[in-house]
Amino acid sequence: MELTVYLAGQIHDDWRETAKKKAMEKELPIQFFEPMTNHDRSDHIGEEILGEQPNAIFKDEAASALNNLRTNVLMHKSDIVIALFGDQYKQWNAAMDVGAATALNKPLILVRPESLHHPAKEMANQAQVVVENLDQAMEAIAYIFQKK
Amino acid sequence: MELTVYLAGQIHDDWRETAKKKAMEKELPIQFFEPMTNHDRSDHIGEEILGEQPNAIFKDEAASALNNLRTNVLMHKSDIVIALFGDQYKQWNAAMDVGAATALNKPLILVRPESLHHPAKEMANQAQVVVENLDQAMEAIAYIFQKK
Amino acid sequence: MELTVYLAGQIHDDWRETAKKKAMEKELPIQFFEPMTNHDRSDHIGEEILGEQPNAIFKDEAASALNNLRTNVLMHKSDIVIALFGDQYKQWNAAMDVGAATALNKPLILVRPESLHHPAKEMANQAQVVVENLDQAMEAIAYIFQKK
Amino acid sequence: MELTVYLAGQIHDDWRETAKKKAMEKELPIQFFEPMTNHDRSDHIGEEILGEQPNAIFKDEAASALNNLRTNVLMHKSDIVIALFGDQYKQWNAAMDVGAATALNKPLILVRPESLHHPAKEMANQAQVVVENLDQAMEAIAYIFQKK
Amino acid sequence: MELTVYLAGQIHDDWRETAKKKAMEKELPIQFFEPMTNHDRSDHIGEEILGEQPNAIFKDEAASALNNLRTNVLMHKSDIVIALFGDQYKQWNAAMDVGAATALNKPLILVRPESLHHPAKEMANQAQVVVENLDQAMEAIAYIFQKK
Amino acid sequence: MELTVYLAGQIHDDWRETAKKKAMEKELPIQFFEPMTNHDRSDHIGEEILGEQPNAIFKDEAASALNNLRTNVLMHKSDIVIALFGDQYKQWNAAMDVGAATALNKPLILVRPESLHHPAKEMANQAQVVVENLDQAMEAIAYIFQKK
Amino acid sequence: MELTVYLAGQIHDDWRETAKKKAMEKELPIQFFEPMTNHDRSDHIGEEILGEQPNAIFKDEAASALNNLRTNVLMHKSDIVIALFGDQYKQWNAAMDVGAATALNKPLILVRPESLHHPAKEMANQAQVVVENLDQAMEAIAYIFQKK
Amino acid sequence: MELTVYLAGQIHDDWRETAKKKAMEKELPIQFFEPMTNHDRSDHIGEEILGEQPNAIFKDEAASALNNLRTNVLMHKSDIVIALFGDQYKQWNAAMDVGAATALNKPLILVRPESLHHPAKEMANQAQVVVENLDQAMEAIAYIFQKK
Repeated sequence: MELTVYLAGQIHDDWRETAKKKAMEKELPIQFFEPMTNHDRSDHIGEEILGEQPNAIFKDEAASALNNLRTNVLMHKSDIVIALFGDQYKQWNAAMDVGAATALNKPLILVRPESLHHPAKEMANQAQVVVENLDQAMEAIAYIFQKK
Repeated sequence: MELTVYLAGQIHDDWRETAKKKAMEKELPIQFFEPMTNHDRSDHIGEEILGEQPNAIFKDEAASALNNLRTNVLMHKSDIVIALFGDQYKQWNAAMDVGAATALNKPLILVRPESLHHPAKEMANQAQVVVENLDQAMEAIAYIFQKK
Repeated sequence: MELTVYLAGQIHDDWRETAKKKAMEKELPIQFFEPMTNHDRSDHIGEEILGEQPNAIFKDEAASALNNLRTNVLMHKSDIVIALFGDQYKQWNAAMDVGAATALNKPLILVRPESLHHPAKEMANQAQVVVENLDQAMEAIAYIFQKK
Repeated sequence: MELTVYLAGQIHDDWRETAKKKAMEKELPIQFFEPMTNHDRSDHIGEEILGEQPNAIFKDEAASALNNLRTNVLMHKSDIVIALFGDQYKQWNAAMDVGAATALNKPLILVRPESLHHPAKEMANQAQVVVENLDQAMEAIAYIFQKK
Repeated sequence: MELTVYLAGQIHDDWRETAKKKAMEKELPIQFFEPMTNHDRSDHIGEEILGEQPNAIFKDEAASALNNLRTNVLMHKSDIVIALFGDQYKQWNAAMDVGAATALNKPLILVRPESLHHPAKEMANQAQVVVENLDQAMEAIAYIFQKK
Repeated sequence: MELTVYLAGQIHDDWRETAKKKAMEKELPIQFFEPMTNHDRSDHIGEEILGEQPNAIFKDEAASALNNLRTNVLMHKSDIVIALFGDQYKQWNAAMDVGAATALNKPLILVRPESLHHPAKEMANQAQVVVENLDQAMEAIAYIFQKK
Repeated sequence: MELTVYLAGQIHDDWRETAKKKAMEKELPIQFFEPMTNHDRSDHIGEEILGEQPNAIFKDEAASALNNLRTNVLMHKSDIVIALFGDQYKQWNAAMDVGAATALNKPLILVRPESLHHPAKEMANQAQVVVENLDQAMEAIAYIFQKK
Repeated sequence: MELTVYLAGQIHDDWRETAKKKAMEKELPIQFFEPMTNHDRSDHIGEEILGEQPNAIFKDEAASALNNLRTNVLMHKSDIVIALFGDQYKQWNAAMDVGAATALNKPLILVRPESLHHPAKEMANQAQVVVENLDQAMEAIAYIFQKK
């Protein structure tokens, strides 16, 4: 058995590489999916493919059309969604992914620092598991594979 | 025909009353649903019903269990979801509602000031209609009822 | 028992009024839903509510966001969809409604002149009933209510 | 990861071969599905398998039963649907595919020349991405696979 | 609470009137739905509405399009399906209704004489309740309303 | 707005009457549904309707066919499920109702004495709200209706 | 691409072997599923596994529990269902399979001799394709794979 | 064809090893999934991953979050669920699995000693097959693969 895991959340640091390395260390048979993590490209992908847009709002709309295409296809293929929230940025797209994942009955692991427990409380309640770091998230998934 | 509309979003001001007043002025046959808008009570409802919790995290978990019970029941009964985002607060629960509504194929009207177009761009792309104020949101719903 | 019927199709003549009159003559307990049939308003509703758009494409996108909001809400509430196709115009939105209705398992009655049988053939095959005029469409629905 | 893509739309030129060649050039791991693109055979497949029919309408009904069998099976197996519209023909079956795909939550990429923006506007609004040519469509899919 | 019940099965005698009378005697708040029970009309409804057909097969196809329109709409509105099988006729449409009802998670009450237990055995296994007569079927539904 | 609530759980005492009285005291617009609470009748309903069965196992099968007919119809009509567990009996049917309700996305309120927290822990985790008594359960539902 | 096909229908002759041979001759990449075609074993499988039953009805119930387990698992795994009806036997289980398949949106190919067009007419109308023999059924499936 | 089977039920003895051995003896191509069967670890997994909890209830909640993550992921991937009940313990989580499996239309094989027929009667009625031992359960699954 192999599991597929979508890594939702902010794209401002390389937490996904950390997650993948930890999974590799544990030899977990996981295929990871993720959004475009090159922040700059993610912001410009609309104009890159569709050409110049009339203003910043339409540029954003074009970019998010492509980013959501990617998210929709990949989340649909995932057995589990991990969503990580950090101290900075609004991260509304990640919170939207949390809502979509739980509405689609995809088990969700929420990763957030303890300091964010209050603003993340409704997401925490919808999540199947809430953890504070990626070690715990990977241990949660490892548990699915373990025999004893 | 009557429509039911869930008013998702921040509970720090009385924007829902504005929305309802505008609907009443237009004589729209709408039944509105909403989260608990008494912020304080929303934060304490867990301990109010379930008793004192061991710490702030568990107090939040208890409160959000009740808040999500309310949201789940009411969103399920809604034909349309309006989600309003403002300048302050993280509003992750509202963004989660956006994700849930679109995953459940509930048509979503997103209300956000133009200044927030960048962080709200993926939500905007998932929404059926994006507006900047409640007048526009109510006009969008009024359009469903109009004959000419 | 009352049935709800969505009247999809072109908005260039008043065929929906004919359909409603025939239903009334037969005293059928039907509530009809329909798109905005004021063609001009349907084309300008985007700018009417959302303000001036950068060009004709964006104006169309804004208008169709509102028109689809209306269609999605009303089709969801319908027991049966009638889709009428005429000789003129591309009518792609009506054909899209046919696809959506059948994918959502809404029984579909297709109304098309015999002359259009070839381009409408795949829609005809997906429809539950194919007729050539509104009299037949209303007789088909009347049959659901009849006792002998 | 491999993606499956259904190529809906008119069958009067060889645009699907162009799409496949572009995907191959980009080395995208895509399996393409498509309707019968031999137009003549598509029109006669009903009588070819089921025998002579009473008249042209029944011949069309027989043909579309087979064509829709093919479409239903293949669209069900697809992760993404690309629908291309051109200047000629009514293309109602393709528009019906657009409606079915979006109702089934299959992400849709709409390809249409800018000149068709008005009649295609409701389809454009339902699509996840709207482009004007196949290069852009393939770049949109390529983006799902790219890491940076 | 009112329940809606679809009465599937053969239309060669007046068993539905018996069922309704028994329900009335028990004062059960049930709204009954049923196929066209005028056998002759049911066989000719296709030509009645759509005009003369090329041969007996096409006449049957036209009639069943209308009969299935009726069944689909009414079964969708039903809380419970009762399917009665008798000694005569093939009754394949009723057996098809049994399959559709159970696939749609509509609780099914199967009524069949003991003598038919062998050919009806797979249907019996899919049914929620199997009885031999309409008294038992109505007692089963009455039980849903009873308090003690 | 009225809510419908299914009261799952043991039928050995009159806890449902207590629940209803509390709801009435709070003037909550709730319609309650429940299994047959006459334990004896619930055990014999199979033979009462279907006649004597070959042995105790088949008698039980007959009874549970009728009891599950009732549960399936009523749970399908419910907005919320309350499941109460007590100290005695195996109560597997109530635990099965918990699994069905959560799989059907019906928000579940679990009522269990603190002493049972260990055997009920997986049910508690699936529930939307976990309480220890009926006062708390009714306060949780009342919260859905409250404005401040 | 490989397709999976469930072969529903009577088990009194070896029509399934004919179907498979024709598929093999056409080199179609199909995996076939089928019910137990050893009629005797199908009738006795209940008692074979569960032991002697009290009477013929309970023996049939036990057998059909196992036969339906098989059908449910295999139909769920099928892309297409072929249902063949012959002149003899009631074949209600096959008609039930037709209803289940179409309710589950599995494209259905109905095979019936022309002589049975009247009793099979409602099934024919629900089917995607209706043919008279297995050659035609296999040509219909072959068409899904053909390029020109 | 390979089938996936989830083994729900108590984890106090090694019945799952017995089941797997019997499947291997019959050379059935089955992939088995199961909960954590190390009872001690299953009880402590919450604190193992998430750290010490405030009291026994919260420790149980933490453990069941992880156990349900595992169950949800694995049951979703299963074609068939086998649920075994024994004489001891409340086994409410297994009964909840029965409810979830049947609500999700996963065919269920219930294994229970004859002595438990009364408390398990509603589960037995929802199950596709009811047996008394693992030999019978494996014969039931073997029957799906057998040709004659």
